[in-house]
Amino acid sequence: MVRIAVAGASGYAGGELLRLLLAHPEVEIGALTAGGNAGTRLGEHQPHLTPLADRVLGESTAENLAGHDAVFLALPHGRSAELAAQLGPDTLVVDCGADHRLTDPAAWDRWYGGEHAGHWPYGLPELPGARAALTGTRRVAVPGCYPTGTSLALVPALVAGLVAPEVVITAVTGTSGAGKSLKPHLLGAEVMGSLSAYGVGGVHRHTPEIAQNLSTALGSPVSVSFTPVLAPLPRGILASCSAPLADPATDAEAIRAVYEKAYADEPFVRLLPEGQWPTTAQALGSNMVALQVTVDVDAARLVVVSAIDNLTKGTAGGAVQCMNLALGLPETTGLPTTGVAP
Amino acid sequence: MVRIAVAGASGYAGGELLRLLLAHPEVEIGALTAGGNAGTRLGEHQPHLTPLADRVLGESTAENLAGHDAVFLALPHGRSAELAAQLGPDTLVVDCGADHRLTDPAAWDRWYGGEHAGHWPYGLPELPGARAALTGTRRVAVPGCYPTGTSLALVPALVAGLVAPEVVITAVTGTSGAGKSLKPHLLGAEVMGSLSAYGVGGVHRHTPEIAQNLSTALGSPVSVSFTPVLAPLPRGILASCSAPLADPATDAEAIRAVYEKAYADEPFVRLLPEGQWPTTAQALGSNMVALQVTVDVDAARLVVVSAIDNLTKGTAGGAVQCMNLALGLPETTGLPTTGVAP
Amino acid sequence: MVRIAVAGASGYAGGELLRLLLAHPEVEIGALTAGGNAGTRLGEHQPHLTPLADRVLGESTAENLAGHDAVFLALPHGRSAELAAQLGPDTLVVDCGADHRLTDPAAWDRWYGGEHAGHWPYGLPELPGARAALTGTRRVAVPGCYPTGTSLALVPALVAGLVAPEVVITAVTGTSGAGKSLKPHLLGAEVMGSLSAYGVGGVHRHTPEIAQNLSTALGSPVSVSFTPVLAPLPRGILASCSAPLADPATDAEAIRAVYEKAYADEPFVRLLPEGQWPTTAQALGSNMVALQVTVDVDAARLVVVSAIDNLTKGTAGGAVQCMNLALGLPETTGLPTTGVAP
Amino acid sequence: MVRIAVAGASGYAGGELLRLLLAHPEVEIGALTAGGNAGTRLGEHQPHLTPLADRVLGESTAENLAGHDAVFLALPHGRSAELAAQLGPDTLVVDCGADHRLTDPAAWDRWYGGEHAGHWPYGLPELPGARAALTGTRRVAVPGCYPTGTSLALVPALVAGLVAPEVVITAVTGTSGAGKSLKPHLLGAEVMGSLSAYGVGGVHRHTPEIAQNLSTALGSPVSVSFTPVLAPLPRGILASCSAPLADPATDAEAIRAVYEKAYADEPFVRLLPEGQWPTTAQALGSNMVALQVTVDVDAARLVVVSAIDNLTKGTAGGAVQCMNLALGLPETTGLPTTGVAP
Repeated sequence: MVRIAVAGASGYAGGELLRLLLAHPEVEIGALTAGGNAGTRLGEHQPHLTPLADRVLGESTAENLAGHDAVFLALPHGRSAELAAQLGPDTLVVDCGADHRLTDPAAWDRWYGGEHAGHWPYGLPELPGARAALTGTRRVAVPGCYPTGTSLALVPALVAGLVAPEVVITAVTGTSGAGKSLKPHLLGAEVMGSLSAYGVGGVHRHTPEIAQNLSTALGSPVSVSFTPVLAPLPRGILASCSAPLADPATDAEAIRAVYEKAYADEPFVRLLPEGQWPTTAQALGSNMVALQVTVDVDAARLVVVSAIDNLTKGTAGGAVQCMNLALGLPETTGLPTTGVAP
Repeated sequence: MVRIAVAGASGYAGGELLRLLLAHPEVEIGALTAGGNAGTRLGEHQPHLTPLADRVLGESTAENLAGHDAVFLALPHGRSAELAAQLGPDTLVVDCGADHRLTDPAAWDRWYGGEHAGHWPYGLPELPGARAALTGTRRVAVPGCYPTGTSLALVPALVAGLVAPEVVITAVTGTSGAGKSLKPHLLGAEVMGSLSAYGVGGVHRHTPEIAQNLSTALGSPVSVSFTPVLAPLPRGILASCSAPLADPATDAEAIRAVYEKAYADEPFVRLLPEGQWPTTAQALGSNMVALQVTVDVDAARLVVVSAIDNLTKGTAGGAVQCMNLALGLPETTGLPTTGVAP
Repeated sequence: MVRIAVAGASGYAGGELLRLLLAHPEVEIGALTAGGNAGTRLGEHQPHLTPLADRVLGESTAENLAGHDAVFLALPHGRSAELAAQLGPDTLVVDCGADHRLTDPAAWDRWYGGEHAGHWPYGLPELPGARAALTGTRRVAVPGCYPTGTSLALVPALVAGLVAPEVVITAVTGTSGAGKSLKPHLLGAEVMGSLSAYGVGGVHRHTPEIAQNLSTALGSPVSVSFTPVLAPLPRGILASCSAPLADPATDAEAIRAVYEKAYADEPFVRLLPEGQWPTTAQALGSNMVALQVTVDVDAARLVVVSAIDNLTKGTAGGAVQCMNLALGLPETTGLPTTGVAP
Repeated sequence: MVRIAVAGASGYAGGELLRLLLAHPEVEIGALTAGGNAGTRLGEHQPHLTPLADRVLGESTAENLAGHDAVFLALPHGRSAELAAQLGPDTLVVDCGADHRLTDPAAWDRWYGGEHAGHWPYGLPELPGARAALTGTRRVAVPGCYPTGTSLALVPALVAGLVAPEVVITAVTGTSGAGKSLKPHLLGAEVMGSLSAYGVGGVHRHTPEIAQNLSTALGSPVSVSFTPVLAPLPRGILASCSAPLADPATDAEAIRAVYEKAYADEPFVRLLPEGQWPTTAQALGSNMVALQVTVDVDAARLVVVSAIDNLTKGTAGGAVQCMNLALGLPETTGLPTTGVAP
């Protein structure tokens, strides 16, 4: 059995980690810690986690987190490097925060500010080369939710040279992506019945991470125009991704063949049958990425749509998948491939 | 392994049955059948059931459903008696429809019309005496979604003589309870942003079923005033249940003690800590019933609030729980006690 | 022209007041003030109020609010008495808060705590005797949102002696009723996809106000069991109200006749045609109360369902209606009777 | 007074037309007609239209629609040309359907099929030259909902030569845009909690209409990549629109100046203050278009976000605005510039 701890257990990422880990056959749940909610029962914050409802949250200190095989960090950025150092090199540290995602210190400084904590193996096994780096590792940088669904939507076409390296992405998200922050625009009365754009013009912090994923896969720079939209649902990201065809004569069948091949062996990526488009409901609570591809003939662009659950494959499910890889368990252990719908 | 079939696999109850049965360690999924959707892929109707997406639906005939250890019927009422007869007495038949819930032929005729198909063991193991009747049975009448949460909310107080047998229930439901019926008032644009009452004045068909459960438990007639309300969410029933205290001096602690005792050993009923009230989100996708009790001192009434997922504990989860009992498996096998939130 | 000021203009009640007052043909909008948001543009908080978007909010001081014909107070309770005293007896003060609703100082102390500020004419003109008290007044206590829809649902039956004075109410509300408070359970991700009860057991502060309205109308005490439920929509209250029939033989026609007569001349109360049940969407943004009545024959209870928009008829619309009465304008001036749907 | 008729009064466009026309000071409401709902009360379908609830719907025949100053057609496409011919050249016919929007018969045949009915003045007065063509006309082709918000978002930049004529649009919509069609994917339980793309790859019928608007304004062809996304809300379209900068050094201020000038005198277009992004809630029920512009410096693209209510400015409000122009009334008469929020 793998004994795990979760720091940040009262938040949305922490809650989803625990939901999945409770169902994981090789996991035993150890310390649960929090920041401001330390000292309270988990059931006050996560009443859906019935088996853990009476657990009392500890402080997110290295002392409380020590002595586990794997420690999941669901903390504000800037906290994980120090904690990881204190936990030692033999403990698997899975960081759901941003600290170790970007490889370029200058990019870190531009987008987050301050000194770069260094980068860790990037937790998106479906990217070229990523699975090998994650196997047996003791440090994982879990991707952001937007980079997960959008990178997997675009990498195969870029790598195959089907499109020019100038992608345009509009991704629509549920509100849990913003966490439990108490901000007026996240109140239910504001969110329900409304759509809003935010972080427009390439200023959202996931932009450099998407660009890094695409550029690394391609081996040369990819320009990314990224617009996030907030929609009235708790979970889910639907990404509309497009890029100019390298050859305007490329047809949808050729595209489809490339994606089929790219994801043929991926247990958590499903290219839907022709004519069926992804919905976030089909991925809800599951670790799946649902994809569909087509060609806009008039505009001579590839269009790919992907759907994920931002909390599952986009955060906690991806994190558990990486834990499995890191610890030598079958990659799919404990991870749902069925969604919860309707 | 238990080999199962599901009739009505393209509907909401059928989809939830398959979601749970896919995760059940002792189950092998056999025939999937449908009415008008026979001949189509399951993935067109239930894209969230990834592992079964390419299955083609058969017709809901006895021939297609034969040869399984257990057959789940998620069909319009009036169909199950004949199918069950054709499947033979050794096949476990779990009927999610209404046909065999009511014990009184006159009540059947009044509320549904026509000849009574007879009654089967009632699939709510938490009711007094029900578990014994379900153990080893080959026929199960799965309760309606409203009767599940409301009966469990009221039976302990009635049986303990704490309240007069005159209960008032208003239960608010998500729209999946109405199934995939194509009716204008169930369109998204109508449902979102609106609340509506329906079946008001004691005319909803679940009223006699609730009355039967309460009266059977008490051993004498219970009057039930039941008002259902439709709210903008896919899943969940929150029931507000009250009854006059038999002794106006009864305090909340006395009530609480009765409920604690009644459900102490029930794996799927959780009386929440004092001061915490149920939410349907905490039960979403799980087989749990969340309860809280209090006394309205001024009005001298007991008030109980229960929350369930109408598709899980309210239909498909309850059905799988009964299958476990009927086939001698541990009652909790394969059934989630954690919800999916937020 | 009536020159008005709104204190609390950045909140939900303040925003709805301004939406209605902008469309009111006899009104000129003067000072807009706020608490913590003083000094900011109204458009940051209420972007839907396009014509006022560039107005800068002042402090909610008597000095800023002086010099208007009517001042609307949408403030936390405890603030209005002092402000009203400073504004002088000739200024119409319409208090959307709770301070002057309850007539009994002991009730105020029990439910809100502290010294009673006294009571003002109660702003629900459709209650017996209320319209006369509001005509020409310079002080108005606008009712709470729950008391509005529930009192109008029950008063005619009580006054006509059709039911026993023991009412049971479950009212389902959208989340704007809680205002813009930054509380975790009001976050969009928590609210959407969930139903929850709160203030259960007769402890919600609107309970004594409902009891006061019903008891005053009847002339003797009425027992009120009130349970509020929070549902995933921004606006709307659907109330399910019932009471035992005084004579179990009373039929729905007799009830209907009483309600038809009671509201025949009320411009903002609509008893729906038989068989049609209220939805909150039909009242959204309008000043209407939609009602339907029936008899639950088996339970021998009257059941009345009412739907309102908690921000319009339930707060700001009611307030404007009272302003019209107070200032001698036609009561319906500027108030929408059509809702915004779907 | 202008006497109007509405054909298709039981649908969403028809309902919104009547909501606005009821509040229009110069309008008297005449015949209300429908297809399958002829013979029923309007209140069954549009309970929010209280003042018209008891009106009985007639058949949508020329006979019933004759004798009015203006006839609004909210009908399936293919019906309006014949009806308009029967109503005569002096009656104002405002067609909310698609029949007369496209100017190119080949485009009509490709996208809708069959013979082109000809084109009428296009009902988006804010487009260059459009207002003049609408003034005094007796035929109006009301734009589609997507073309309204997206064309206004992009025309100023194209006309000013700021961007290359290759635009990429992802527009997220509420479900009322699909009308009251009884399709499974529009059921509340399917829509709530889910996002889905449809008509992807340039196949949505509004694509050629957007291209026509942009190309006409620019005077040369504009390539349009358009992806619509369905989100869980009843009303609203948020459009994320982008295009490569003609000169990568163009800054946001230059863009802003162009948009400020373009819409300085437009009563229904609001360029938000810098840093504030549009929400659909702010436009709900109003005739406003809310816009914000920026430059994505890294991607060298203009990004414009627009928000409208698809039923108001996107359909019925635009239609009434055109009626005002056609009949010589002030263009803004009867049209709300305040939205309904939260």
